[in-house]
Amino acid sequence: MGTHLLLVKCADQPGLVHRITGVIYRHGFNVLENHEFVDDTNQLFFMRTAIDGKLDREKLLKETRQELPEGAEVRVAQTGERPIVIMVTREHHCLSELLIRSLFGNLNARIQAVIGNHPDLQGFVEKFDVPFHHISHQGKTREQHEEEISKVIDRCDPAFVVLAKYMRILNPSFVNRYPQKLINIHHSFLPAFIGARPYKQAYQRGVKIIGATAHFVTEELDNGPIISQDVIPVDHTHNPEDMAQAGRDIEKLVLARALNLALEERVFLLGNRTVIFD
Amino acid sequence: MGTHLLLVKCADQPGLVHRITGVIYRHGFNVLENHEFVDDTNQLFFMRTAIDGKLDREKLLKETRQELPEGAEVRVAQTGERPIVIMVTREHHCLSELLIRSLFGNLNARIQAVIGNHPDLQGFVEKFDVPFHHISHQGKTREQHEEEISKVIDRCDPAFVVLAKYMRILNPSFVNRYPQKLINIHHSFLPAFIGARPYKQAYQRGVKIIGATAHFVTEELDNGPIISQDVIPVDHTHNPEDMAQAGRDIEKLVLARALNLALEERVFLLGNRTVIFD
Amino acid sequence: MGTHLLLVKCADQPGLVHRITGVIYRHGFNVLENHEFVDDTNQLFFMRTAIDGKLDREKLLKETRQELPEGAEVRVAQTGERPIVIMVTREHHCLSELLIRSLFGNLNARIQAVIGNHPDLQGFVEKFDVPFHHISHQGKTREQHEEEISKVIDRCDPAFVVLAKYMRILNPSFVNRYPQKLINIHHSFLPAFIGARPYKQAYQRGVKIIGATAHFVTEELDNGPIISQDVIPVDHTHNPEDMAQAGRDIEKLVLARALNLALEERVFLLGNRTVIFD
Amino acid sequence: MGTHLLLVKCADQPGLVHRITGVIYRHGFNVLENHEFVDDTNQLFFMRTAIDGKLDREKLLKETRQELPEGAEVRVAQTGERPIVIMVTREHHCLSELLIRSLFGNLNARIQAVIGNHPDLQGFVEKFDVPFHHISHQGKTREQHEEEISKVIDRCDPAFVVLAKYMRILNPSFVNRYPQKLINIHHSFLPAFIGARPYKQAYQRGVKIIGATAHFVTEELDNGPIISQDVIPVDHTHNPEDMAQAGRDIEKLVLARALNLALEERVFLLGNRTVIFD
Repeated sequence: MGTHLLLVKCADQPGLVHRITGVIYRHGFNVLENHEFVDDTNQLFFMRTAIDGKLDREKLLKETRQELPEGAEVRVAQTGERPIVIMVTREHHCLSELLIRSLFGNLNARIQAVIGNHPDLQGFVEKFDVPFHHISHQGKTREQHEEEISKVIDRCDPAFVVLAKYMRILNPSFVNRYPQKLINIHHSFLPAFIGARPYKQAYQRGVKIIGATAHFVTEELDNGPIISQDVIPVDHTHNPEDMAQAGRDIEKLVLARALNLALEERVFLLGNRTVIFD
Repeated sequence: MGTHLLLVKCADQPGLVHRITGVIYRHGFNVLENHEFVDDTNQLFFMRTAIDGKLDREKLLKETRQELPEGAEVRVAQTGERPIVIMVTREHHCLSELLIRSLFGNLNARIQAVIGNHPDLQGFVEKFDVPFHHISHQGKTREQHEEEISKVIDRCDPAFVVLAKYMRILNPSFVNRYPQKLINIHHSFLPAFIGARPYKQAYQRGVKIIGATAHFVTEELDNGPIISQDVIPVDHTHNPEDMAQAGRDIEKLVLARALNLALEERVFLLGNRTVIFD
Repeated sequence: MGTHLLLVKCADQPGLVHRITGVIYRHGFNVLENHEFVDDTNQLFFMRTAIDGKLDREKLLKETRQELPEGAEVRVAQTGERPIVIMVTREHHCLSELLIRSLFGNLNARIQAVIGNHPDLQGFVEKFDVPFHHISHQGKTREQHEEEISKVIDRCDPAFVVLAKYMRILNPSFVNRYPQKLINIHHSFLPAFIGARPYKQAYQRGVKIIGATAHFVTEELDNGPIISQDVIPVDHTHNPEDMAQAGRDIEKLVLARALNLALEERVFLLGNRTVIFD
Repeated sequence: MGTHLLLVKCADQPGLVHRITGVIYRHGFNVLENHEFVDDTNQLFFMRTAIDGKLDREKLLKETRQELPEGAEVRVAQTGERPIVIMVTREHHCLSELLIRSLFGNLNARIQAVIGNHPDLQGFVEKFDVPFHHISHQGKTREQHEEEISKVIDRCDPAFVVLAKYMRILNPSFVNRYPQKLINIHHSFLPAFIGARPYKQAYQRGVKIIGATAHFVTEELDNGPIISQDVIPVDHTHNPEDMAQAGRDIEKLVLARALNLALEERVFLLGNRTVIFD
């Protein structure tokens, strides 16, 4: 018994909902929550169904696939807490939001490890009885450094790796090792600013809004599929540091929201876009 | 051909989605959009499906009902513009929002008539080539007045009657004549204020937020099922009139949003609550 | 008698507030509202004071200037309705928001004229008894076209010229003719998109937020000092046209807010930034 | 040297700003930030000025008072971290927000002690090296219990006592011992709900928004001057527990914001209202 998620992505065609719910019905599941979406442009069908009952995973997967067009992606996922790994550098705001939510049961995740390329946050993390791995990048190639990180990650077998203000660029080889598993948070502005010291640029431009974007990491830096975005107002009395603080306040909320959506399997990829069933 | 909405509300039981989509499939419809919701507490099932294809309304209704438990409510609604009637007193802000949206095609409604118990807004309404009916309440019983109003409404056979700051209390007999058709907007506060001059009370209480609530009208005044709510910030520099203006700014947006949800049949009643498929 | 605004911008130095309020005090004015701001980086002082009493404008200006460092900008502005001119192309949403607010006294402006390079909105504007000038750009150089527009504007002597979705690029010669008087609205995104069909790009990028920015127009296109910004959420169910509609909904509110701030002289320029006393 | 806050509240009369800034000027202070507000209804004047320079506190207070009408309230406050005490029961969300902000320097407060009438949060608090005082109310009169609490508070001499989901009613004698020092947070709804289990009531009413209000505690329970309010959207998919979680998410942000405003002396009382200089 228990609650499970049936996740389907395939080419659209008539009758898909009817056929998939037929399988669910014949298995005797109770449907707790159901979302579908059809993307007209690409003729793609997405479905997320929370089902309750006795699971024969292989049978459910097989019978569902039989009802679907070729190339369909079908998964059965668990609900409940899932393992994650968090990567940090020196800033605490995103990390601490996740640690607190996890500690008090408001995040559907067990934080298996925190990896920092600096040791600054070690003491803080250990207060929460979470292992902190200081893996310095000093004197190593990027490949070597990422290889060490991967060893820790792979031991944890996490559902997601959260870049909670991890401030180093990742190699494509690392990114491709964890497809749809790397979630990043970064500040966003209207208009956007290229280059260094974005808050200084935002200040000089006199923006009235600071934003944050949480997204999956793909090879194209900061350009992966967006999961969640939000903004916070600022004004002329904010200096660049005040703007950065406002940015941190909104970043931590957007990252926590995005991570929860991902943990609950509410996020589907659609090219470089996302379908969010919330 | 054309787009239609299949709307279902019934007791929940296993397999409903499968059976309903089976009917849709056999009719050869293309499903454009689909929402379901199960209310656990009351074991009620709600479904709204936008379908595209050649409609045999009676056959679709009959076959859908055959698949559903007794007492099921099933409807097929049209998409596209639907007739509405607007009732006003003296304030223009909600009325003008609806007139403009209608004029430029941003409201799925044809405004058949505006009824005012005062003549103040007649000239404005007529600029938009919409008939204005001045039906004064002077020297009439409430029943007589509402009877005159009903005559105008009934000639228009509207999908909804919008109380766009209509400032008179309605008799239960009038309310019950238009079940789930009367949509009202009123200001809302945290905390709420009972009695006269609410903005003065809100000012004296020093609230930092002014809200608006759009709801269906039921016999219990201002206590019908909520369709939409939103708020706008205020501060100590707002006098009672400034707060009232802020209230008007948010009222017009909330009412327009609620009306669009209702026009698109995205609102289902669930006791005194609503299910909103947006 | 009446209410006036004393507006000061100058190099910062100790005692400015004391000295300026001394002048106000000696003139026997009642101070209704007062804002100051010091920009540390540039050592600039800004002050906006709403005063009530009998005005001897020249004397007040002269005596205030005597208390201030060299190069100080001092103005006395009126409160109450001020003339504006609106420029449009084909889209109505910003225009209609301003016409309605003006009609019902919620905009501190008299709309002297609407100028369109297309005739589409003429009938609508004339409903409001506002003159519409159709000045086609067909068969004219940009200079000739702008010269014709300037003639209409200059006859109106407006406090501000509002580009309410005027979709043609303006020459620097035109922009410089109306310094700090041209207010524009445009959509904004996180991240920003360069080039044509921005809503299509936003759709393809899968953004979760659509924004709008109102700003003064300077020679650098869409890059002038920002007055107001806001956003509206979108999701994967929005196609490019839905996103454009969401953009229009937020654009009209942001433009109206920015215009009111400007009309009430709450906006000061600080390089390419603004100081907003709201 | 250092930064100080000059805080004035008195009957309004002409020339106050001029006279107060004269004192500041003669003391050689640099004005960093200045806010004034006149409440027309009550003819009251409020001023908060951040000044930088060498402070002779007694002289500044005396000379400022000499310039003001009788009964003026004048204070000089420090900026920078100030001591606070937090009172809790079992819920952690507000407490943890304050502990984390304090730990990382985003709260201008030193948390001197946390007092809980239950021991549940002791382990968590002690992770942060903050003393936790478990003062059970079991077997004590309310007066005895509050007397024990007061002993801990008074040893800490806090600037504010934060009721971070302290779930017991306080006697007037306790409330009056800490005038303008007790800050409380509670959920708020549109409309408001009286009585027990408010989230269940909110659920049954089908509200679309959950709010939070931070306020000073006065004898009149939950009815003291409001410092900050905000809301968070909910919908029909939220059960009462989901609504309670949404309520907790917004409560912690509103409380932190209100506390920061209070710590920075940006909050003035005006009868049962507040003037907020933010």
